[in-house]
Amino acid sequence: MLKTGKQYVQDMVNMNFQLYIDGGKVAGADVINHPKVRPMINAIAETYDMQHEKDLQEILQCKSHLTGDIISRWTHVPQTVEDNIKKVDITRFANRRIGMCSFRCVQNSFPAILLTTREIDKSKGTHYYDNAVEYIKYFQKNDLIGCPALTDPKGDRKVPAHMQEDPDMYLRVVDKNKEGIVLRGAKLCQTGSVVSYEKLVLPCITHGPGAEAYAVSCAVPGNAKGIKNISARYSQDDRRQEGLEWDIGNMKFGFHETVVIFDDVFVPWERVFMCGEVEFTGMLVNLIGGAHRPTTGGCKTGWTDILIGAVQTFAEYNGTANVSHIREKITDMIMYNEMMYSCGIAACVKSKWYDGVGMIPDMLLGNNTKYITSKVVYELVRLAEDITGGIITTLPSEKEFKNPEISPYLNRFYKGAKGASAENKVRIVRLIENLTYGAGALCHSAAHGGGSGQACKLSMYEFAKGEPLESRKRDAQKLCGIIK
Amino acid sequence: MLKTGKQYVQDMVNMNFQLYIDGGKVAGADVINHPKVRPMINAIAETYDMQHEKDLQEILQCKSHLTGDIISRWTHVPQTVEDNIKKVDITRFANRRIGMCSFRCVQNSFPAILLTTREIDKSKGTHYYDNAVEYIKYFQKNDLIGCPALTDPKGDRKVPAHMQEDPDMYLRVVDKNKEGIVLRGAKLCQTGSVVSYEKLVLPCITHGPGAEAYAVSCAVPGNAKGIKNISARYSQDDRRQEGLEWDIGNMKFGFHETVVIFDDVFVPWERVFMCGEVEFTGMLVNLIGGAHRPTTGGCKTGWTDILIGAVQTFAEYNGTANVSHIREKITDMIMYNEMMYSCGIAACVKSKWYDGVGMIPDMLLGNNTKYITSKVVYELVRLAEDITGGIITTLPSEKEFKNPEISPYLNRFYKGAKGASAENKVRIVRLIENLTYGAGALCHSAAHGGGSGQACKLSMYEFAKGEPLESRKRDAQKLCGIIK
Amino acid sequence: MLKTGKQYVQDMVNMNFQLYIDGGKVAGADVINHPKVRPMINAIAETYDMQHEKDLQEILQCKSHLTGDIISRWTHVPQTVEDNIKKVDITRFANRRIGMCSFRCVQNSFPAILLTTREIDKSKGTHYYDNAVEYIKYFQKNDLIGCPALTDPKGDRKVPAHMQEDPDMYLRVVDKNKEGIVLRGAKLCQTGSVVSYEKLVLPCITHGPGAEAYAVSCAVPGNAKGIKNISARYSQDDRRQEGLEWDIGNMKFGFHETVVIFDDVFVPWERVFMCGEVEFTGMLVNLIGGAHRPTTGGCKTGWTDILIGAVQTFAEYNGTANVSHIREKITDMIMYNEMMYSCGIAACVKSKWYDGVGMIPDMLLGNNTKYITSKVVYELVRLAEDITGGIITTLPSEKEFKNPEISPYLNRFYKGAKGASAENKVRIVRLIENLTYGAGALCHSAAHGGGSGQACKLSMYEFAKGEPLESRKRDAQKLCGIIK
Amino acid sequence: MLKTGKQYVQDMVNMNFQLYIDGGKVAGADVINHPKVRPMINAIAETYDMQHEKDLQEILQCKSHLTGDIISRWTHVPQTVEDNIKKVDITRFANRRIGMCSFRCVQNSFPAILLTTREIDKSKGTHYYDNAVEYIKYFQKNDLIGCPALTDPKGDRKVPAHMQEDPDMYLRVVDKNKEGIVLRGAKLCQTGSVVSYEKLVLPCITHGPGAEAYAVSCAVPGNAKGIKNISARYSQDDRRQEGLEWDIGNMKFGFHETVVIFDDVFVPWERVFMCGEVEFTGMLVNLIGGAHRPTTGGCKTGWTDILIGAVQTFAEYNGTANVSHIREKITDMIMYNEMMYSCGIAACVKSKWYDGVGMIPDMLLGNNTKYITSKVVYELVRLAEDITGGIITTLPSEKEFKNPEISPYLNRFYKGAKGASAENKVRIVRLIENLTYGAGALCHSAAHGGGSGQACKLSMYEFAKGEPLESRKRDAQKLCGIIK
Repeated sequence: MLKTGKQYVQDMVNMNFQLYIDGGKVAGADVINHPKVRPMINAIAETYDMQHEKDLQEILQCKSHLTGDIISRWTHVPQTVEDNIKKVDITRFANRRIGMCSFRCVQNSFPAILLTTREIDKSKGTHYYDNAVEYIKYFQKNDLIGCPALTDPKGDRKVPAHMQEDPDMYLRVVDKNKEGIVLRGAKLCQTGSVVSYEKLVLPCITHGPGAEAYAVSCAVPGNAKGIKNISARYSQDDRRQEGLEWDIGNMKFGFHETVVIFDDVFVPWERVFMCGEVEFTGMLVNLIGGAHRPTTGGCKTGWTDILIGAVQTFAEYNGTANVSHIREKITDMIMYNEMMYSCGIAACVKSKWYDGVGMIPDMLLGNNTKYITSKVVYELVRLAEDITGGIITTLPSEKEFKNPEISPYLNRFYKGAKGASAENKVRIVRLIENLTYGAGALCHSAAHGGGSGQACKLSMYEFAKGEPLESRKRDAQKLCGIIK
Repeated sequence: MLKTGKQYVQDMVNMNFQLYIDGGKVAGADVINHPKVRPMINAIAETYDMQHEKDLQEILQCKSHLTGDIISRWTHVPQTVEDNIKKVDITRFANRRIGMCSFRCVQNSFPAILLTTREIDKSKGTHYYDNAVEYIKYFQKNDLIGCPALTDPKGDRKVPAHMQEDPDMYLRVVDKNKEGIVLRGAKLCQTGSVVSYEKLVLPCITHGPGAEAYAVSCAVPGNAKGIKNISARYSQDDRRQEGLEWDIGNMKFGFHETVVIFDDVFVPWERVFMCGEVEFTGMLVNLIGGAHRPTTGGCKTGWTDILIGAVQTFAEYNGTANVSHIREKITDMIMYNEMMYSCGIAACVKSKWYDGVGMIPDMLLGNNTKYITSKVVYELVRLAEDITGGIITTLPSEKEFKNPEISPYLNRFYKGAKGASAENKVRIVRLIENLTYGAGALCHSAAHGGGSGQACKLSMYEFAKGEPLESRKRDAQKLCGIIK
Repeated sequence: MLKTGKQYVQDMVNMNFQLYIDGGKVAGADVINHPKVRPMINAIAETYDMQHEKDLQEILQCKSHLTGDIISRWTHVPQTVEDNIKKVDITRFANRRIGMCSFRCVQNSFPAILLTTREIDKSKGTHYYDNAVEYIKYFQKNDLIGCPALTDPKGDRKVPAHMQEDPDMYLRVVDKNKEGIVLRGAKLCQTGSVVSYEKLVLPCITHGPGAEAYAVSCAVPGNAKGIKNISARYSQDDRRQEGLEWDIGNMKFGFHETVVIFDDVFVPWERVFMCGEVEFTGMLVNLIGGAHRPTTGGCKTGWTDILIGAVQTFAEYNGTANVSHIREKITDMIMYNEMMYSCGIAACVKSKWYDGVGMIPDMLLGNNTKYITSKVVYELVRLAEDITGGIITTLPSEKEFKNPEISPYLNRFYKGAKGASAENKVRIVRLIENLTYGAGALCHSAAHGGGSGQACKLSMYEFAKGEPLESRKRDAQKLCGIIK
Repeated sequence: MLKTGKQYVQDMVNMNFQLYIDGGKVAGADVINHPKVRPMINAIAETYDMQHEKDLQEILQCKSHLTGDIISRWTHVPQTVEDNIKKVDITRFANRRIGMCSFRCVQNSFPAILLTTREIDKSKGTHYYDNAVEYIKYFQKNDLIGCPALTDPKGDRKVPAHMQEDPDMYLRVVDKNKEGIVLRGAKLCQTGSVVSYEKLVLPCITHGPGAEAYAVSCAVPGNAKGIKNISARYSQDDRRQEGLEWDIGNMKFGFHETVVIFDDVFVPWERVFMCGEVEFTGMLVNLIGGAHRPTTGGCKTGWTDILIGAVQTFAEYNGTANVSHIREKITDMIMYNEMMYSCGIAACVKSKWYDGVGMIPDMLLGNNTKYITSKVVYELVRLAEDITGGIITTLPSEKEFKNPEISPYLNRFYKGAKGASAENKVRIVRLIENLTYGAGALCHSAAHGGGSGQACKLSMYEFAKGEPLESRKRDAQKLCGIIK
């Protein structure tokens, strides 16, 4: 059963999340309707509604390989190259629709979990794989959305988890019994914790022997006992609280980030995918990265499609869209954008098949996508601001535009070429501001969401340094006569 | 007489500015103490106080070549190469002290005005040069600060000023009489209009025949009758209104931008430097650009010194300051920073002498400084965010850190290596946020303050395409035998 | 029937080409064995032999959609997305095998010719399409190789072809009769004219009304009467003439470029694909670019695979392969390489079907591939030289290494870590030199082969500026409330 | 006495150098007139002649601070900021005159040697400083030119000098007696060994305890007994041997590089500046780098002035000089060029005074100059080739242009706009080729001459990581309230 946006919103109210925000605490419908949370609820609701749109059904619905049911592609485990390509494409499409992250990447962890649990079971005689399969079926059947819980506090980053002064600087298992395990610690940088049904706990780095308590992966309901959500404050999110429209840029949609405290949260065994098997943390961490990162090639391009459209609109309002340097810069924005997209697509084309799992994108090309993305978005922002000009930081508020004493002046002096109204000019500039400096800032997400550029670069070297580099060396040495 | 910060603040109260802000209007001390204005008052007051600091007097005070009095270097017209270099250096020093623009660049227009008025007088028999000299003496004697009023609304940018549908899309002279002239129109993107004694009206582009009414340059008291200041809203300035400290990053100092309406403002002739001489607008516009832009090489580097210091602090809090890729990135930040600085310094070294004016920096190298700066700051921001990580957008507010119900968690999970407290980590991250996405965002200022990169690039080609390119061609052609 | 390398070489001898070179003229076997020509013969022969290698047959042989015969994939007209992807992949594979261009891109013009001739026939009642189909069948059946003849001399590039002072500055039809047409003019920058069976004449720019004589496309046997081949001299090709091995870098394989004069060359009508239909030149030129350029994503990556292998080998010889900055730079080389590859692959994935033609890659993504490639190869060369060091320009010749009086010194002082011999160090450095500055210089080919970066950029804007930009504008305007 | 070019050439003949080249050995006038050596002789002779040109005397002649005599500025030890700036400026001027390196940088080592010897003498009671002063006087008095002998073979670069398997992989002292010391080993990458009077031996890295034999600095006559010069082979130097003119690009001037074997070379004590004081090698190496590297800001810009002039000439020949993207690219070339220059100038402006030595440029800014230069030249080459087009690699030889059978065709098809002859087009393209891929290739020199970019980067971090970074941290911490 595919949910609608309306059902999703009602479910979120029913989850009765607790959120610490603005120095106090809110719960239930007050969380969902909080002006800093609501835009993300709207965004996700939009993705639920999209599944029912007539001309999107074909791409957004598909058949589960586990149950044979028609499910949302947002919950599907890719079984073909085409499935992986479609994941990139629907992400670009959805992000362009809402002008931001569509927040449907938790599924990118499923192949990594399936493959790793299979390997653990083989090696250890455990039964994690079945847990994973059952959990994914449940997730698909109920058309859920989840958020990955990855980033540990880390304290002194050069010290391993189990040797930190404070043992809780990485999330850990503090108790185990027949029914399940108990988690203590925190996950920072968590997007969407109060707008998701589920929370997928994953280790954020490779752990070694001695750190068994930290080698844990499991699924936790978003409203489990012991979970404390604390709201983050991000750029320009205050503007959401005024009831204005123009100054927000992206009127309806936005992010919400939290810190999540795990205050002795109990998780039953059937929701556990790893518990103590440190030697498999590397595999899990690397697979999550590689399987997820091609999506960046659709994700950021959806956003940047909007940025390009906004900048082109503004250039037309200024009467400068045909000036040669503007055309060159718009083309360069398109170039960078399609470059990111192409990297994601190629990683999918070169997917590899894994029995019991499905098609996992190429690890080298996948990491490459994210590494490139983490850099070029800054160039995109630079070009956007170059075209937009100083107005991006010197525009009066909608409140001034609506003050009758000065609105005649402002409406006159801010109008553009060929009847472009001051209001429209303001709206489009605020959208550009939203994407570059505001609550929808592209760079933040591109630089660190889904792993930093440096993490991707290190992974790339790991994947390249064996046979790939060896075979290149052999070929080079043949050509110059070092070897035959 | 060199003013103190305290005297300056009192003067500003006495100016009794009118400011439209937050949908209403404030005046007098309420302007000066408005949380969005006060940080800029603080910043300028700091520059007044610096002049009296014992070890800064030698560089910040100097002798006026016009009056022989000891004046502030901030009001001096450079007479030597060393004067120009010192302007770059004190700008870097002051901006580093306050972590933002020290707003003392109006003086960079003086040489341009002196030289242009001299040429107009020679050609037209006018007396603008004497006006300029007397005005500068007055400015120096009273130790004033002024703001340039440059950017016209422009409407359809491809249409010349006098052919726009609405004749006021560029500021113009609507009346002249024996006493003076009357100005109508607006100047957008104006920094500091309610924190300055004076406003220096300048044309923002070259005008041609038919546009005589738009070829106007003059000085206007900041509180002249008919001036309407309308506040801009910029990134994260809302945070100034909460009375918090941590979330602000740069606790004490900040910008304030306005749109300024000129609603039939009268200016007496002795304050007029150009009125109708369209054939000299090009000279004035180009000289202002070239004479001002070397300062960018000190300006942005002062800010970035703080960004580098903040990022290095944060890396130490994380325990990662000695990791090789962090060291490489910090060095690259230093490289970009010193590159901008070097460009500014070289433009000053290659200054040229103009009788009755002084030393004006090299036009090609000056524009080059700003062109380069407008690009590399994005790279600096990218590197800063790369090192800082996702925390830059996922950090809870000070309000959460002070909520006793959750502060124990936050103080624990946000602490860093070797006793770095959560509070200090938050403060330094918020400073980085301030400089990259917030109220002190470096890129805005570098991209468009003092002319866009593209404007600088066009100027560079203009200055290069005559003899400089011709002589290079000759030298090349000699080497390959095309000419002897 | 798929030819072998040996058959190909014999055929080339039989073609009895005439080549002006070294101030004189050679013919027949002397052309083929000329030390500046032979390496390209070797390279192409290698591609013929590859078709017969057991584990390559599956990818290098395929079924012709025109005849049903098994043909070389190098002559195939792509009918599926997979065909297009395979073209990129075999190009990467072959170029890596020979360390340079495998020169099998003439086929990329076939879809453009098929589609354009179909449109001309529809509009004009001509029969070019059938000519094209028959010609391609002939080409496939005889397993031929052809070279595109594109670049006209152009004289003053701002003057259209038919208004040039000298009417032959673009290749033109000077006579027509019942049997065929007569061509006069020249094609510069022509790769492989004396190593190919066929020459595919194509216009290099869009022509307009009045320039009918210049709107010509046809196939000409490489040894047709009236063809004059004049050898180009390129970087370090002299070294081929000494009989040395070490100094050459790429021992066996290399390029050969010519200028080709068309001195009234007769072409029978059945080999003509366009003759005078100026309104279709734009279509043909754009389609050739778009259909060819994804291949660049395989082409340059094949070369760079060798460059990466060579640089890694050299770093190991120096004992520095594990130094952190070397690892970072190798990874960046891999990143740029896979970025080019990914762009080519994505253009193929987004191919579109055309009846009577087949699958043509996406025009925007195809041009993007080449535009990106034309820039990043310089970054690859920079990184390669950074790692290699000053030795790339200060290495003595093999002749010195073999002078018994000094060889003991050289063999001693040039040896590397862990038994790396001086000879091997020299060989690998010379290969790097070959790829960066020598006869196999990557940048030349990437910057201008198959159209300049600027040409690709202009095409991109053309393909983007209609609906793609309009729809992005609409989406942006919806988000900020300008339109519903 | 300032020498003339003619005297210099005769002196070089008299030096009777021995040179291994082309598999054999030449001596005396045959070395000097060898087609691969002569162009460098010409270049240096030109710098000697320049000193006597009337309008250059003022800048190229100056007073020695040691003897009070008028000397060549090329041998002067800078005593003022202005001296350092002039060094950058005359280097740019001279390099632009000859289109390559003017090879007058050995003097940049003098301040480093003076300062280091003073410190060694203070600490050890030695008398190296007097040796250095006397040697510099001798050098100035005889108006000499010297070449630095720095780069050791190094073998396995991760192994210290004294622990290498072969003890001669770094140049070392194998014997000492009352009269002097005996050197054994080799210096690779040595520019100008057979065109210089003197050889300045310097360590190329910091050595530690145990490596005393390798801590050696001294001056050796270029023709000392035991010196063996072996010619390097570099890109396109073969063309020098044909007696052609067009194909060479830079007709008259060029480099010559060698490997130099030190086969037990005796050096008297009065020419020794360091012998065994390992704890001072770091100081010497770092000072040489820092004092030399600002010159790069004049060096590469002189070359690139020619590259810009050549490219602009070629664009005019093509009729495209006014096309907007060409103008933008020419401006970007100017921007990169003036950026390098500005960095060098700023390093000089911030020079520091050392008693008994003079003014040494700022170490951080000096290294920055070279680090930046090592990168941006590739961008300059990219832009140059972008504008030039495919002709750079597909141009026939002068030999073909002079073959009467085909010259009518070539002269016709290679002519340009408005009477630009084919010959001139060829000449200018070959000059561009010379500077980008040929015997004058800019990138080689910029990337590794005077130390690699990475070496400069490491130096920068060393100079920055103490107080400079600490003070930036303090300022940042003050602004956000971490410290008061």
